[in-house]
Amino acid sequence: MSRNRLEAFSDGVIAIIITIMVLELRIPIGASLSALRPLTPIFLSYILSFVLVGIYWSNHHHLLHATERVTGAVLWANLHLLFWLSLVPFITAWMGENYAAIPTAVYGVVMLCAAIAFTILVRTILASEGPQSRLRHAIGDDTKGNVSLALYAAAIPLAFVQPLIADAIYVTVALIWLVPDRRIERKL
Amino acid sequence: MSRNRLEAFSDGVIAIIITIMVLELRIPIGASLSALRPLTPIFLSYILSFVLVGIYWSNHHHLLHATERVTGAVLWANLHLLFWLSLVPFITAWMGENYAAIPTAVYGVVMLCAAIAFTILVRTILASEGPQSRLRHAIGDDTKGNVSLALYAAAIPLAFVQPLIADAIYVTVALIWLVPDRRIERKL
Amino acid sequence: MSRNRLEAFSDGVIAIIITIMVLELRIPIGASLSALRPLTPIFLSYILSFVLVGIYWSNHHHLLHATERVTGAVLWANLHLLFWLSLVPFITAWMGENYAAIPTAVYGVVMLCAAIAFTILVRTILASEGPQSRLRHAIGDDTKGNVSLALYAAAIPLAFVQPLIADAIYVTVALIWLVPDRRIERKL
Amino acid sequence: MSRNRLEAFSDGVIAIIITIMVLELRIPIGASLSALRPLTPIFLSYILSFVLVGIYWSNHHHLLHATERVTGAVLWANLHLLFWLSLVPFITAWMGENYAAIPTAVYGVVMLCAAIAFTILVRTILASEGPQSRLRHAIGDDTKGNVSLALYAAAIPLAFVQPLIADAIYVTVALIWLVPDRRIERKL
Repeated sequence: MSRNRLEAFSDGVIAIIITIMVLELRIPIGASLSALRPLTPIFLSYILSFVLVGIYWSNHHHLLHATERVTGAVLWANLHLLFWLSLVPFITAWMGENYAAIPTAVYGVVMLCAAIAFTILVRTILASEGPQSRLRHAIGDDTKGNVSLALYAAAIPLAFVQPLIADAIYVTVALIWLVPDRRIERKL
Repeated sequence: MSRNRLEAFSDGVIAIIITIMVLELRIPIGASLSALRPLTPIFLSYILSFVLVGIYWSNHHHLLHATERVTGAVLWANLHLLFWLSLVPFITAWMGENYAAIPTAVYGVVMLCAAIAFTILVRTILASEGPQSRLRHAIGDDTKGNVSLALYAAAIPLAFVQPLIADAIYVTVALIWLVPDRRIERKL
Repeated sequence: MSRNRLEAFSDGVIAIIITIMVLELRIPIGASLSALRPLTPIFLSYILSFVLVGIYWSNHHHLLHATERVTGAVLWANLHLLFWLSLVPFITAWMGENYAAIPTAVYGVVMLCAAIAFTILVRTILASEGPQSRLRHAIGDDTKGNVSLALYAAAIPLAFVQPLIADAIYVTVALIWLVPDRRIERKL
Repeated sequence: MSRNRLEAFSDGVIAIIITIMVLELRIPIGASLSALRPLTPIFLSYILSFVLVGIYWSNHHHLLHATERVTGAVLWANLHLLFWLSLVPFITAWMGENYAAIPTAVYGVVMLCAAIAFTILVRTILASEGPQSRLRHAIGDDTKGNVSLALYAAAIPLAFVQPLIADAIYVTVALIWLVPDRRIERKL
């Protein structure tokens, strides 16, 4: 099975996800700046999701670059990741339009599931690559991945205390990952 | 004619189909969990269609991987398959928003037509590859394909008895195919 | 400049055009078959446009396959073609929802402009390939292209006599082209 | 890191941006030509944005063609450019539907930000390619890029004097760039 087609399909899906989010920015009625104002929370959640999805694309890029075999299990672990990412435009718009505890917590749930799906994808690839693979060496103990999972898991209950705390955590995760996975880059 | 461009175009169309389905998940009004509840059937039908379209992508991937010649007939058999798949977002949303006998049966009709289109694509490729091709050897007697056709054909009338029976059949077809076509994988 | 990226970008745009048309099939309210009935003209115009855009993709595929040099002029002639094709979802939905003389005629105008844009693209490529190119040999006198232009030009005024005549002409053009451009296929 | 996947992802995003803009051309109610009339400003702003996004695609194509190394910084400078371009469908529809000073000025702001993002991308690539790269030689002093930045910056306040002046400036920028970046083409 070819890695190229898996990359091309994933790129296509991620490109569509990152782009159709902007369709949720409804065209304001009226030509004044104040007509733009109600869009501010939607726009901020769009920026957050654009960066988080961009991070997935970048890490996915690095991960597959170091992958040598694409098995059926890898293919389905990849589709599983794309499924959770496909929910990002929906949850971004819901959180943007209804800034409150529950949408902010559900945003965290979707992001946590996507992060778990990425972890499953990494492990599925590691299993198929074998114990001596370049990728296993490069991934190391995956501190960043584990920290992100913990942060998302913490953000979900904290959204009920104060949505802003959860949002600050989502931004923190983005900042942690903003640099693409140099572990892999460096070792290869 | 190049196989690569056929793959790239099909990947693009399937990536868009699998992603725009989420646009039918209308953003709920209100920030409560109960605002999400009416979306449950739409979300379940989204998961079903995501998996079924993912199966088509995976099998398409395997099929073209074993294809050596792309003729005009193959190109049109492929567009015919993409046509039926392009109706999946529409019928998924209709079934999700109106859970009843007719939408569930029409879902089966679209899936049956897509399955027939896939069978036609396989045969068109087999015809152009010749009797000694690797693909013919790998496909064998295509039990899975025939079982799926029979199940979809059975689901359509059964939807009028009870939509849940038809849905159980669709889920069964998904489970049958969830593993990518190992016949081809193994033989190649 | 690389032909591959021109193909990939064009494939992406055409894949999106052919797929987002289905978004104009509004989900019917209600679960009866009669709820589907008002969609019939939209569905028929969707099939027509799917086939016509599929023909453009197929011919574009053949044309670029025989192209050796991608100049700036070729790139812009290609974007010009994509511009007219990008209007197909709009005009398909308008004609489907308002079956009458003017939408049917405007459909012909968009298709005529796309056909002219394809002719310009062919000539731009021929000019950059030089008089001894394989492509010029393969294209020959382009009877099919000229017949299509004449048919579209005839359909526009005839839509005012009777929209069905214009539709019959659009279907005729589709049938003429349904077989991919064997002139090029055969010669190469 | 592979240049090909960066190109493929950018092509995907730009193809989607350029195509989903047409979704903002709402299907008119009624079959008369006068039903199309209110769409005229939206259609004109669509043509302008189609050309401007097409120019970005073309210049991006040339730029990456001359790029040899894709670092993490290049990847994020590229995503930053795609972010601003992703706002084009939104601002195109807003300007088209509300032809007035503020939407026209905001259109200029988005275009200025995209132009700045492109400049950052060029500089990031130049920094990673090193002082003796083919690209640095080919870019020269980037007159066109600087003139575009100045024109967009001038258009924003002028939109408050008269939107038409700003629009004339946007068209001027398009005309300046319509020819793909021959500096690079010629030198390579």
